[in-house]
Amino acid sequence: METQKRLLVNGDRLKETLETFADFGRTVHNGVTRLALSKEDQQARNYFCECCKQLGMSIKVDDMGTIYATLPGVENKPPIVIGSHLDTVKKGGRFDGVLGVAAGLEVARTLVENQFQPKIPLTIVNFTNEEGARFEPSMMASGVLSGKFAKEVMLQKADADGVTFAEALKASGYAGQPENRLTEATAFIELHIEQGPILEQESLTIGVVECVVGMVCYEIEVTGESNHAGTTPMTMRKDALFKANELIMEARRRLGSLDQALVFTIGRMDVSPNIHTVIPNKVVFSLEARHQNPDIIKQVERIIQGLTQTSEADSCTVTVKKLWGRDTVWFDSRLCQQLEQSAQSLGYSYKRMVSGAGHDAQFIASYIPTAMIFVPSVKGKSHCEEELTAWKDCEKGVNVLLDAVCALQSI
Amino acid sequence: METQKRLLVNGDRLKETLETFADFGRTVHNGVTRLALSKEDQQARNYFCECCKQLGMSIKVDDMGTIYATLPGVENKPPIVIGSHLDTVKKGGRFDGVLGVAAGLEVARTLVENQFQPKIPLTIVNFTNEEGARFEPSMMASGVLSGKFAKEVMLQKADADGVTFAEALKASGYAGQPENRLTEATAFIELHIEQGPILEQESLTIGVVECVVGMVCYEIEVTGESNHAGTTPMTMRKDALFKANELIMEARRRLGSLDQALVFTIGRMDVSPNIHTVIPNKVVFSLEARHQNPDIIKQVERIIQGLTQTSEADSCTVTVKKLWGRDTVWFDSRLCQQLEQSAQSLGYSYKRMVSGAGHDAQFIASYIPTAMIFVPSVKGKSHCEEELTAWKDCEKGVNVLLDAVCALQSI
Repeated sequence: METQKRLLVNGDRLKETLETFADFGRTVHNGVTRLALSKEDQQARNYFCECCKQLGMSIKVDDMGTIYATLPGVENKPPIVIGSHLDTVKKGGRFDGVLGVAAGLEVARTLVENQFQPKIPLTIVNFTNEEGARFEPSMMASGVLSGKFAKEVMLQKADADGVTFAEALKASGYAGQPENRLTEATAFIELHIEQGPILEQESLTIGVVECVVGMVCYEIEVTGESNHAGTTPMTMRKDALFKANELIMEARRRLGSLDQALVFTIGRMDVSPNIHTVIPNKVVFSLEARHQNPDIIKQVERIIQGLTQTSEADSCTVTVKKLWGRDTVWFDSRLCQQLEQSAQSLGYSYKRMVSGAGHDAQFIASYIPTAMIFVPSVKGKSHCEEELTAWKDCEKGVNVLLDAVCALQSI
Repeated sequence: METQKRLLVNGDRLKETLETFADFGRTVHNGVTRLALSKEDQQARNYFCECCKQLGMSIKVDDMGTIYATLPGVENKPPIVIGSHLDTVKKGGRFDGVLGVAAGLEVARTLVENQFQPKIPLTIVNFTNEEGARFEPSMMASGVLSGKFAKEVMLQKADADGVTFAEALKASGYAGQPENRLTEATAFIELHIEQGPILEQESLTIGVVECVVGMVCYEIEVTGESNHAGTTPMTMRKDALFKANELIMEARRRLGSLDQALVFTIGRMDVSPNIHTVIPNKVVFSLEARHQNPDIIKQVERIIQGLTQTSEADSCTVTVKKLWGRDTVWFDSRLCQQLEQSAQSLGYSYKRMVSGAGHDAQFIASYIPTAMIFVPSVKGKSHCEEELTAWKDCEKGVNVLLDAVCALQSI
């Protein structure tokens, strides 16, 4: 196939497909609310299956509701899998997840309209409940596939209305069979928006994602003593907020000098009793950090644990608790090389980069050669209605995906 | 009277009276919940009136429910008024407020049992809703008396259940007449617990309160931009929490060097969206400061207003809003001198000090010569069930009050 004329996808058709998907849950501000297994998700799934059937693809659904649409190959080899997820967060965007599924459709359409029957079967996957916005945790179905999560536990996860995942799955009509699960594949490639500002800032089109970075998340609790804000001299206070303030400064100073690529965030902070006339007696805050190098993460953990070392003069006590951590997941180096070659041969600017966010690909990578393609997010925004990727960038991302799929035929 | 044997109060009786009052709303942890005009407050009021009638005092109630019990004087002069308030916060203590009323009873009882008819009438006052815990604002009735608050507005203030002050007042049976309001008096002296740690720390028994300090309360709002905690490099962030962190450090550094007696507190801090994986886009925090010297308060305000001056490099915007302020209220210098003399002549250790907390006395001071006596709060705690003042210290405080009342007869 690679000796013949280069195939390119149809950007207009891709855009139309993305906008059609966006209609299933479109918000007034042009975002999308399409929670996993909701009515809108069912509509999107139905539309996806309809499109695949029109291409002569066969549809299978597994016991977590994940859909696999397969274009047969000349040879009966494990498929090349492409895809992502159709669910969104509440008031999310029109690109996160769905771009990877629409890309799969566009690749298949391009192959079919050019009458290229691939040597290796091509499967488009739609993973159930990647966002975890309706049922926690996120990446639920790929987590079950990879043995990370226990299916029986996941089935019992309930949404805010008390509806379990099992009930919602059954009601959706997408409860399939365990024997349909993805067990082997030649490769899995997920095209996704970057959800960060790097590609845009560096005026690049394609990100070849080498890994999903490891992370740790801690909770730091500072305990002081509440007293009247008007009657307690400064020197007699045990002010948990002031102490937390010092800890945050210390953490920023030490973490900030570790490595340029390290990101760390204090996203959550709760002050008690949170009354303006009362000295706070407790402050609890989260501190999470992400980096691909486990040695850096180890240093981060030492710094965070060191925050408990208070001086004698200190009137507050500090405890730190590790909430969770995950190791860096490295993607398949041959696949990354292929993506780089594809971008290069198409004349697109690109860079190798890391993913700071989690994706289904990080679980699938545990048993299938996996890689990811990023395309730029305008202003780095995602999980919001303003989420945007230029149509041209979407198209280029799918061209890289198509080129890689074609190149992999000769493996 | 002052030439005769020195009168001393009965400590055991005072304790018994305080414990009886504490029964009206006593909590399982030996605190008190007696919200203004609640059933418990009515019981305490009834008990107070009963005690006063037994002493031959006449009872009047004004249109805000404030009770005045008067022991007639030999001469028909404006009364010497002593007292405080019977209401408490939710899960408050057994001393805040009620000590001043029980002290009034104990002073009257001591006079009556010693058959001293005062030259000047003696009035014990119980101000309605000092705490503002059920109906905001605090010091409501004394605020109306002094013209600080409009009665018609106060009557419409509703509690958490939607019951208005007017309705609660009527239901309590303590809706009296406007003509009973306190309009003139020879003096007003309020005995109160310190609610701070200073007397205890300095091993002193009596605080002669010279003023209620002035204060300002600001709200500072920092606006940045929310982004994904994993995908946004540190240099591209507009982290409202980190910016707030820097502002707090700057405020602490500058305010901390102004004056030893200045107290400042950041009691409330709200982070948005307060999710550990999202960079905060907004942090709002309160900053209040108290000092007796208006020049210091002016400097405080300049420092707080200066927090909005951000550098060009700054990615967040900062706005400050003044929520309110109050000027320092100085008490009557002759009364303060008298209290000092009384403490001295009784052989009690004492100091002149300021009140960081607000009291009914600060409003009454606007039209009646006023002063306050403080007694030590164990560990400086108040507005909590652990609130404690040693019985002996309560007794000594009332002895100072009695001595001052007697001394004022010869004015």
